[in-house]
This record gives sequence, C-alpha cells and structure tokens, in this order.
Amino acid sequence: MNSPLVTELLATLPEGRLLTDPDVTESYARDRTFLAPGKPVGVVLARSRDDVVATMRAATEHRVPVVPRGAGTGLAGGATATDGCLILSLAQMTAIRELSPQDEIAVAEPGVITADLDRAAREHGLMYAPDPSSYEISTIGGNLATNAGGLRCVKYGVTRDSALGLEVVLADGRVLDTGRRTMKGVTGYDLTGLFVGSEGTLGIITAATLRLRRAPSEVATVAAEFSSLVDAAAAVSAIIAAGCQPSLLELMDRTTLQAIDEWKNIGLEPGTRAMLIAQSEGSPDAMAALCGAASFVAVSSTPEEAAELIGVRRLAYQAKERLGQCLVEDVCVPRSALPRMIATIEEVAARHGVMIATVAHAGDGNLHPVFIFERGLAEPPPAVWAAADEVFRAALALGGTLTGEHGVGLLKKRWLGLEAGPLATELHHGIKQVFDPLGILNPGKAI
Amino acid sequence: MNSPLVTELLATLPEGRLLTDPDVTESYARDRTFLAPGKPVGVVLARSRDDVVATMRAATEHRVPVVPRGAGTGLAGGATATDGCLILSLAQMTAIRELSPQDEIAVAEPGVITADLDRAAREHGLMYAPDPSSYEISTIGGNLATNAGGLRCVKYGVTRDSALGLEVVLADGRVLDTGRRTMKGVTGYDLTGLFVGSEGTLGIITAATLRLRRAPSEVATVAAEFSSLVDAAAAVSAIIAAGCQPSLLELMDRTTLQAIDEWKNIGLEPGTRAMLIAQSEGSPDAMAALCGAASFVAVSSTPEEAAELIGVRRLAYQAKERLGQCLVEDVCVPRSALPRMIATIEEVAARHGVMIATVAHAGDGNLHPVFIFERGLAEPPPAVWAAADEVFRAALALGGTLTGEHGVGLLKKRWLGLEAGPLATELHHGIKQVFDPLGILNPGKAI
Repeated sequence: MNSPLVTELLATLPEGRLLTDPDVTESYARDRTFLAPGKPVGVVLARSRDDVVATMRAATEHRVPVVPRGAGTGLAGGATATDGCLILSLAQMTAIRELSPQDEIAVAEPGVITADLDRAAREHGLMYAPDPSSYEISTIGGNLATNAGGLRCVKYGVTRDSALGLEVVLADGRVLDTGRRTMKGVTGYDLTGLFVGSEGTLGIITAATLRLRRAPSEVATVAAEFSSLVDAAAAVSAIIAAGCQPSLLELMDRTTLQAIDEWKNIGLEPGTRAMLIAQSEGSPDAMAALCGAASFVAVSSTPEEAAELIGVRRLAYQAKERLGQCLVEDVCVPRSALPRMIATIEEVAARHGVMIATVAHAGDGNLHPVFIFERGLAEPPPAVWAAADEVFRAALALGGTLTGEHGVGLLKKRWLGLEAGPLATELHHGIKQVFDPLGILNPGKAI
Repeated sequence: MNSPLVTELLATLPEGRLLTDPDVTESYARDRTFLAPGKPVGVVLARSRDDVVATMRAATEHRVPVVPRGAGTGLAGGATATDGCLILSLAQMTAIRELSPQDEIAVAEPGVITADLDRAAREHGLMYAPDPSSYEISTIGGNLATNAGGLRCVKYGVTRDSALGLEVVLADGRVLDTGRRTMKGVTGYDLTGLFVGSEGTLGIITAATLRLRRAPSEVATVAAEFSSLVDAAAAVSAIIAAGCQPSLLELMDRTTLQAIDEWKNIGLEPGTRAMLIAQSEGSPDAMAALCGAASFVAVSSTPEEAAELIGVRRLAYQAKERLGQCLVEDVCVPRSALPRMIATIEEVAARHGVMIATVAHAGDGNLHPVFIFERGLAEPPPAVWAAADEVFRAALALGGTLTGEHGVGLLKKRWLGLEAGPLATELHHGIKQVFDPLGILNPGKAI
C-alpha cells in the first residue's frame, strides 16, 4: 500500500514525476561517496517550480523528510538518502531562463550543468566563472548548495561570489525571492548568502540569478614538473608574491601523477614528484621564470595546447578512482601554510601506511588529499579514518578549515564541532528552526 | 540619579569609558542624515572587546537598547540614537591586530579608518579594496555594518567580498568567531555574510579578518566631459561591452559638476552636462577612444594627475552640502537600465521642482541622486519626499534595489516592504529573534 505522502503526490504531481519502484529509486539514493544510503519512499523528478511547491507542501503536511539532489556528484554525502525520506531531484529543471549579455547575468534553473551555462555565456564573450572539477557533470543547484569552488576561483571567487539572487521554495512550499539582479544591494539581511552552502537544509533553490564575467581573450598556461614537492610549493608562493594574479594555480603530487600516467601515459619523468599548472591572463613568462627549480617547464602557445595541459589536471579524480575506493578530503589552509600542510599529509600517509594522493588549488590553499582504500569495503578502514583525523586537526591547527568547497554533508559531521564551536552550532540550529521548523529539509546533514 | 544600567557600567567599565553628560552625548547621537535623534542615557567609548562584552551583558540585564556606531558617517540613519538607548561607539578600537602580506589578510578592529587600512596594506604592495567615498573618515566597522561599496567595487566587489571572518559580541555578551583566515571555506552557514550589512541589529563586530589584494602597479585614468548625459551613459555601456574591465567608472551630472566648479573652480566648460571618470589597470587608450562623443577627454600620465582627476569626484558630496541640506539616495539598477534611470531622475526633478544632483558608480548601475533642500528645515519638504518616492519606485520597476551600499537604516524603512516583501520580512525577523531575542540591538533599524 502507498504511504499517504505517495498517494497525495500521485494525485497532485503531473504524471511521471514520481518514482517509487525500489530498484529505480535506489539509483537516486547516493552521491559519489562510499556511504550506504537508506531506503527512500520515492523520488520526485521535478520539472518546474510548481512541482517543487507541490512536493514541499505534501512533505510538510505528512512530516516526511526531503533529501534534495542535483546530479549526485557530491563528495561529502550531502545527498545521501535516509530511510523513509523523499528524494527531490532537481536534475530535470534545466532551463536557462534568461541570459543578458548587457547586464552580464543569467537566470538558471538548478539542473543546468555548470559547464553548459559557461558555454552559453561564451557565445556572448562572457563566462560563468565557478568551475569545480566536476563542472561537466555537476549542476548549478548542487554547486549553490555546497558553495562550490573550482580551478578558476583563485581569481574569480567561489559560487557565492557569482550568486546575485535566488528563487527558493521553503519547507512549507512558500516561494521566496532573495537578492537582486543588480551588482550591489544591501536591502535586508543576506538571505542569498545564507542559502548558498546550506546543503539543502534551509530551502530548495529553483532558480538563481548568476553573475557572468567577461571571458579573458588570451590565456597563457604553464605546466612545470618538479623533483620535490617543497620546490613546487615554493613556486606557488613566488608566483603569488610576484603579483602574477594567476587565474588557475593547481598542484598535483606524485601519487596523483602516477595514477594519471598509468592510465593515460602522459610521459611522466621518473623523478617527478610534483606538477604545477598555472594559468594567467597576461604573458606566461613571469610565471614560467618563477618555476626555476622545475626539471621541466612547458608553456602553451595555442588554446589547444592549454586545454591539453589543464586536461591532465581534470583527469586526476577519475585516475584515482581506478586505484580503489576514494575518501576525498577538502581542507583549506592560509596560503602560507601550504608547504607545512603538504608535509604533514605526506608524513601522516607514511606513518599510517595509507595511500594519499593530493591535488591542491594551490593559489587558494585548498588541498584535496584523496585517501585510497580497498574496493569492496563498506567504509574506510580504521587506519584511513585515523589518518584523516590527523589531517583535519592539522588543517585546523594551521588556521584552516575542514572543507574549502565540498561541504560538510555527512562525512565531516564528526569533526564539525572542532571548527564551528558550541555557540556557532547553537546559532546554526536557531537559523535552521526559522526556515524549517519541522526539520524536514535534509535532516542530519551539514550542521 | 543614575539609571541602574549607568550605575552598573560605571562599576564594571574602566574609568573614562562612559559619557553621560547630555551636552557631550548629543554629539554621538546622529549620523550624517538630517534625522533628529532621541536622547541616549549614555555613550560607551569601547577600547577593547572586553569593554563591549561588559556593555552588552549589562544592556541585556537591564533590557536597554544599544545603538552601535563607528564614525557616524552613515547616510541612512542607522546610527541615529533613540530615546533612552545606550550608544556604543567602536571608534576607539583602532588596532590593526595583524597584517600578513604572505596570506594577504589583515585583522582589523572596527574603529580603524578604512583608508588607514588601505595605506597600511600598500606598504606591502597590497591594498584594501573597498573604498566608499567616505573612506578617509569612515571606519571598517561602519563599512561592515552597511556592506559599503565604493568607487573600486566595479572591479573588486563590496565590503562583503573582502570579509573572511568576524569576531562578534552577541546581544548577551557572548563572543562568536565566524568565518576563517582562508580564502575559501564552507563549514556551517555563512554567518559572516549575515552580519555584514545587518546594520548593528545582530551583533557588535569587534574585529574582522579582511582580504587584501595585490595593488595594481599601473593605473590609467581618463576623464571625459559630455554635452549630453545620454552620451555619457552610452560611453559607460561601450566601455563595459568592450571588456575594458575598469577598476573605477564614475559619472557626475551637471548639477554636481556646477556645485564642484563653484566651490573649487575646476574650469568646467559651460556646455558640459556630464563627466565620466574611468580608471583601468591597462592602457587607457581603449577607454578614451570609447568616449568619442565627449567634448573633452583628459588622460593622466602620472599618478599625481590621476589623483587630481579622481579628486574631482571625491569632492562631490561636500560640494553639494554647500548648497543646502542633502537627502542622499542610493538606488542601484541593472547596468543596462542606467540611462533610463538617469532620464527618470531628471524628469522627476523637473516635474517636482526639486534640485537633484546625481553621481553614479556607473559601472555597477549604482546612482546617488542627492536631493538638496533648504537649510534650517527639520526634514525634507513634501515635494522632496514625493520625488524620492518616485525615484525609488522607478528603480524597483527597472529591476533595481532601494540601496546599493548605504543601507536601509531609518530613512528607507518606509519603502522596505516594496522590495523585501512579507515573506522575506518574516524571515528577517525570525533571524533577528535568534541573535537578539530581547530586541535590544539597534531596534527599529534596517529590517
């Protein structure tokens, strides 16, 4: 027999919007973490704001938890289903409602693939700057929910910095418009900022007014291989200190490079311990010169060559997934602490006998140490958790944060108290209570 | 006889921190609006976070409203005293606690003058980007409270975009640390963004971790005079559309220019109806060429010449104050609507027989129409209010906002409902209740 919620949704939603076959709903129940999901009562495939309104009204009436999801590419368990929840997929709300080259804004629905919005903007000489590594498969809605970063954010900021206004369906189905279409505005509290990064716990974003930026006409790309990770980190500091203003500054360690090389045969020199990929909108010469300690430096002279150099970086995550299951971490430290953080990760990996492959958005001090463990295990073995615990604590001790751009989700809740403290936690829950008094929006996540 | 609050503060605060003489406290009771303040019970001149903690604990105990203030340069009445309130001045908390060139951050107390922080940063080749016109007299705390903009924000964003973390004393005296020292981070809700722009209604900021940026090595400045405001607005659009990425793009109308010319004799040509001042970090030639319709174009070739050209703009507000009392408005519209907004302001001024002198941060679509009225009046005459009302409604109809960077304070509360709507208002008050359940923080302002 159907639950009262399912019965109501079948009656109110247009046909085909609700899935209840357990074999089908299971595939909507997890993100890209190893976390085992609960069993949802159904999956709503929303195609419009009205679908979301109807869903949230019914969920409120029947007090059923709702787990919103985009493309399910999250790395923190934020979209993991809980037992008895309703999954609300926004992946089919894919309209770019508006794209105004004059005002340099777009209004996009949550299911728009991030790279698709970027491509649409580029037809007008503009770009959508935020570009998480997943941007060819992740959605605007998911990016907003986690305040996603990316490779270009060293110059253009995170998703928050491109979000001007939101259309949000609240827990009870009421529709709220936040923010504005203008570049500036200070009327009322910053509700836009509050929803961005809230991981689906405060409301369901059904459209976003996003800032576009002028696409740079010329981009130079430098790739440098180093026989020492410390030398590579020193080059990062030198590039920043010289005022090169890179629009991308990525660091990969040996384990990552080897994983890519084994897969794609990129011709890695045996002694290479680190690779730095940098991009800037002026001449590449200054950046190349600052990689003086490198064993090999390549400078792109065409967009195709640049894409090839960056392409190596974009293979990193998939290359690691070939080696085993991945626990992808996301600490961020003040830029000056990058070499110390890298050294700590290497030391922790060696001491615990754990394989850690690290890439870093080095210009932001944001590191992704990926803990690789045996396939088939239900969760990471104790040595991985012990190593991860040490990495988190080291990041916090260096003045850093648990998560630069992936979110807390379920994975990092264990450590949340170390960073947020009891007073911030109390306020988070007070805010949650204002927006979602019944606690039905993605319960147990993020805060 | 002293009130119980005053008695307690005299006992708990170090000597000299509390002023109660009405002749003295009166001078702390207003900002730069015409609004007549109420009579405060006293003024606390806080010198440390501990002073703020003691003040808020006592205010909570005795249920006395607290009106925080920085330098009192606000233009919306946000720091206007109410009868029986305690004024909490942060102007004497002037320490720059830290300035790290390596991490490109500073930790500043709220009383630091904005331009002083910028100068401190420039000693290291960095800058503090937000530069409201008042930046030589306004404070970091006031800038944070209103999310101040400025001339450079067309390129570098508003105050929010430079605020990484805050130390805040809550209404009950508890101390909260928000945000982080890192460039990115998504642990928990964005409390930093919630405090920025909240106009002292959610907590008292006692320190801010602020992002510094690399100071541009070369800046070119162009000033162009136009015989038509429409031509000047067209040049703005052309400069943006060409991707010049100006770091400053200011427009002044004839009334403003005449006020400056009468005061400082800048040699204004009689037919000039508008002046555009643009700055960029590359060659000025492209921008100068796009001012083809101008009757006169000047390009700076030295920093001194550039400072002189910008200096004209920075005189605007004082020049207008010489003509009478000023109601300074702050609407912001999508950039493409700038010419229509300017035309509306001119039409409204003519129809109501009101003098309006407008400057605009044109690159952001942010206009400051200044309504000038007779000295000696307690408040603007009805024709000014009627004209202002039409200007606000026109801005909203064009997809704009009531306030780009000054805040709502008291002055704009009348119109707030037109923009925020009942649902956002309900949420604002719900959030206020979480942070300030007794409603003692700057009551009646902003929301």
